[in-house]
Amino acid sequence: MAEKLLGSIEAGGTKFVVAVADFDYNVKELKKFPTTTPEKTLAEAINFFEHFDVASIGVGSFGPVDVKVESETYGHVLNTPKADWSGFDFLETLKVAFDIPMYFTTDVNSSAYGEYTKGSGLGADSLVYFTLGTGVGGGAIQDGKFIGGIDHAEMGHATVIAHPEDTYEGGCPFHSNHCFEGLASGPTLEGRTGAKGETLPRDHKVFDFISYYAGQIAFNTFVNMAPEKIVFGGSVLQGADMPKVREYFKQFNNGYVATPDLEELIVRPSIENNRSATIGNFGLALKVLKE
Amino acid sequence: MAEKLLGSIEAGGTKFVVAVADFDYNVKELKKFPTTTPEKTLAEAINFFEHFDVASIGVGSFGPVDVKVESETYGHVLNTPKADWSGFDFLETLKVAFDIPMYFTTDVNSSAYGEYTKGSGLGADSLVYFTLGTGVGGGAIQDGKFIGGIDHAEMGHATVIAHPEDTYEGGCPFHSNHCFEGLASGPTLEGRTGAKGETLPRDHKVFDFISYYAGQIAFNTFVNMAPEKIVFGGSVLQGADMPKVREYFKQFNNGYVATPDLEELIVRPSIENNRSATIGNFGLALKVLKE
Repeated sequence: MAEKLLGSIEAGGTKFVVAVADFDYNVKELKKFPTTTPEKTLAEAINFFEHFDVASIGVGSFGPVDVKVESETYGHVLNTPKADWSGFDFLETLKVAFDIPMYFTTDVNSSAYGEYTKGSGLGADSLVYFTLGTGVGGGAIQDGKFIGGIDHAEMGHATVIAHPEDTYEGGCPFHSNHCFEGLASGPTLEGRTGAKGETLPRDHKVFDFISYYAGQIAFNTFVNMAPEKIVFGGSVLQGADMPKVREYFKQFNNGYVATPDLEELIVRPSIENNRSATIGNFGLALKVLKE
Repeated sequence: MAEKLLGSIEAGGTKFVVAVADFDYNVKELKKFPTTTPEKTLAEAINFFEHFDVASIGVGSFGPVDVKVESETYGHVLNTPKADWSGFDFLETLKVAFDIPMYFTTDVNSSAYGEYTKGSGLGADSLVYFTLGTGVGGGAIQDGKFIGGIDHAEMGHATVIAHPEDTYEGGCPFHSNHCFEGLASGPTLEGRTGAKGETLPRDHKVFDFISYYAGQIAFNTFVNMAPEKIVFGGSVLQGADMPKVREYFKQFNNGYVATPDLEELIVRPSIENNRSATIGNFGLALKVLKE
């Protein structure tokens, strides 16, 4: 008889990553494919899982999505610029194919859960995870539960004070330069410099600006939720930028609130190969099995 | 035999309010007295409770305080400008007098819990409460538990973008005009106008500024935690200012995130006579009895 496995769907706006693992999170098989129409993309995901005996699946999706279990549109993709996907019943499409327990949340919540259970948050009771990439998002966990009363967090859109020398008009279509994403997402690097982010030297002023926003958001996160770990994932910031992020945290705090050692508090993800969300989904698949 | 009662200590920086109530939260007796030295003030509180058969006590204290049960300095007042109180073992002083269960938290958490259980949050699963008074503070609750991983929240010190016309240098000794408290506490009214807050007409520009900061913080709170209720207590803002606060929330959101009706989301406290913290303490006293 085939071994029972845990399933993961990391549904990104440009690509899907599907995977199965044993109950110790050892990946048995993993597949990536581009995000096209909902029908084609989900068919490919379903086809992947049909080759295994899957006990449960954790899904982390690009958003906005409805994660409220009691809601009529639970498991749907909500209004998104990707027109095909707006209103798509993601979870039900999976449920029709597989009558097994599933956990449905945002991609960033999945990453947060991965780092919480198996990454930088190992042993911690609370963690907030931010990703700075094409977009900026955040997910918060306290005592094993996501913070988010009636909806998932949209932490990338919290307001930030602009760096006094940063004159960029901002890259958020909703909040221009008033929010974290508008000033710290990947596209803002090219928006400011005209050059692709990956071609810019690490000591370019623009990374100082991004570190300023990350440090500010880390400070706000600490005064709002006091998590044991604040993790900055994504490709915009690198490990080498973390000292600057901590330095700006310190400037924003200015000695007000007592904190743990900032080297322990503000960290990069520790799950390798960009697998935080996949590992998180396995954890959520396991969690939903136990409930 | 005397009736078993619940006890409340609302320990403010300028005055203490102690009270006892039956298990339906009916106040049996309540006393206020000024906050002087820790020894004298606690002696007065203890003397009050000695006249009753108290089953448990909820304590909401001015801060910073150590609320981490596993900490060595749990129940202590931490470093505060009120020099006498710095390092004072508040909880132990009570425990020596009364060997009964006690819940120890911040004054604003107590108010949040009061509104959550018996006030504007009645029936809601999540709520964030802000108070705008001499200082600015916030407390958040989700599914009956305070949000705060390794410490209590200090939400009054989160950064805010200054109103473009607000040139005030700010009133926070740590963050000048970079934080919510620095721009929206009671003393900033006089700081800006030279006149006492209570003498200013409600259509004074300064209340527009404060509403702008409250609307901004409400928006940030919603994207960070998505609570079912956001309550603005304290004397700086009044019910008449709430429409403006909601209007600014709308401007900051700019159509990005779906919200409930803002008249339901952003509200004033509904417990009368400024008793949110006292009622909250009774609730916490009851909670600790059941644990």
